[in-house]
Amino acid sequence: MKTPFIVLEGLEGAGKSTVLQVITQWLEQRGIDYLTVREPGGTPLAESLRELIKKDWDERVSPEAELLVMYAARVQLVNEVIKPALAQGRWVIGDRHDLSSQAYQGGGRQLSKNMLAQLSDMTLQGFKPDLTLYLDIEPAVGLARASARGALDRIEREALGFFERTRARYQELAAADPSIKTIDAEQTPEQVKAHVLAVLEAQWPS
Amino acid sequence: MKTPFIVLEGLEGAGKSTVLQVITQWLEQRGIDYLTVREPGGTPLAESLRELIKKDWDERVSPEAELLVMYAARVQLVNEVIKPALAQGRWVIGDRHDLSSQAYQGGGRQLSKNMLAQLSDMTLQGFKPDLTLYLDIEPAVGLARASARGALDRIEREALGFFERTRARYQELAAADPSIKTIDAEQTPEQVKAHVLAVLEAQWPS
Repeated sequence: MKTPFIVLEGLEGAGKSTVLQVITQWLEQRGIDYLTVREPGGTPLAESLRELIKKDWDERVSPEAELLVMYAARVQLVNEVIKPALAQGRWVIGDRHDLSSQAYQGGGRQLSKNMLAQLSDMTLQGFKPDLTLYLDIEPAVGLARASARGALDRIEREALGFFERTRARYQELAAADPSIKTIDAEQTPEQVKAHVLAVLEAQWPS
Repeated sequence: MKTPFIVLEGLEGAGKSTVLQVITQWLEQRGIDYLTVREPGGTPLAESLRELIKKDWDERVSPEAELLVMYAARVQLVNEVIKPALAQGRWVIGDRHDLSSQAYQGGGRQLSKNMLAQLSDMTLQGFKPDLTLYLDIEPAVGLARASARGALDRIEREALGFFERTRARYQELAAADPSIKTIDAEQTPEQVKAHVLAVLEAQWPS
């Protein structure tokens, strides 16, 4: 079996951290060696890029510059961390990946699909997750949860319309790709957990 | 007249700073308003990206990540600084621009010409300098001058073969584009100055 790469996606406050715990507990119960990573980030250079792109600047950050920083961090993480871990037989669980750029910079920032597709192809060269769990939530509900956790960063402080466009793009892409499973993140935590476990068991039966 | 964007290119130690002074003095004598910028850098975000990509890391920096950081910094500078300055009628003089990525990441790092061309097209969308002065120098001569100036950074410490490939790509691209003028940077400072002034006067007669 090819070692799996599983990705969690969704708006701020959709509950990715909770679902990450569900997945790692499931892996631990099966005695599977795994690595968790987050994007943007996950290597020293990529974490520094994360900090730069989330902080506030005394200048407008061009949407194209934001997109390119995201892909710089992604290609560093994929080439230097994710692919080597998979090659060693460790499952990799990612908190965000390429779909976030498609949704946030493509949907939210309205950058062209062509630009997104070209960048994705040139940097990932066909590398993609075996399973993506997309946690779908109403933007206002997610943002209320996220702001209860603490101060919002430069991207999280965008207007509601930005997150509505981001969600719409997530939903559109999830509907078109069978490797993306949509989880209703407004259910109770128990219901979300049961749904996630059912997806994992269906794809990797014990 | 369209307000000109002039770029200086060349290996480390080729004498870009000296030629920059020649150009700014020429502009001042004519009473022309100008802005000088450097790449990567020239805006707060782009200068932070410059620092990240030139410093040493406890990890290999993927050539693709390096390339994308360069383009992130470039698109930020072009969109937020260079284009607005030109629109206000200020001449812009750039210390490095797109040709550096073609030469260093394309020639030196041997990234594909197709990837370079796609990134260049998607970020610059046809925007290009009116004149590029390429200061051509033997890599060993340039590096000896550059190391006499102080410690070399992560990219400047590459092996000689890297700079030989970079120079070969510079020469190839300069030969193919009439807007790129090659200056022999191993001449005396007086000869270099005379050649630069002759090029400027030919393109913008007083």
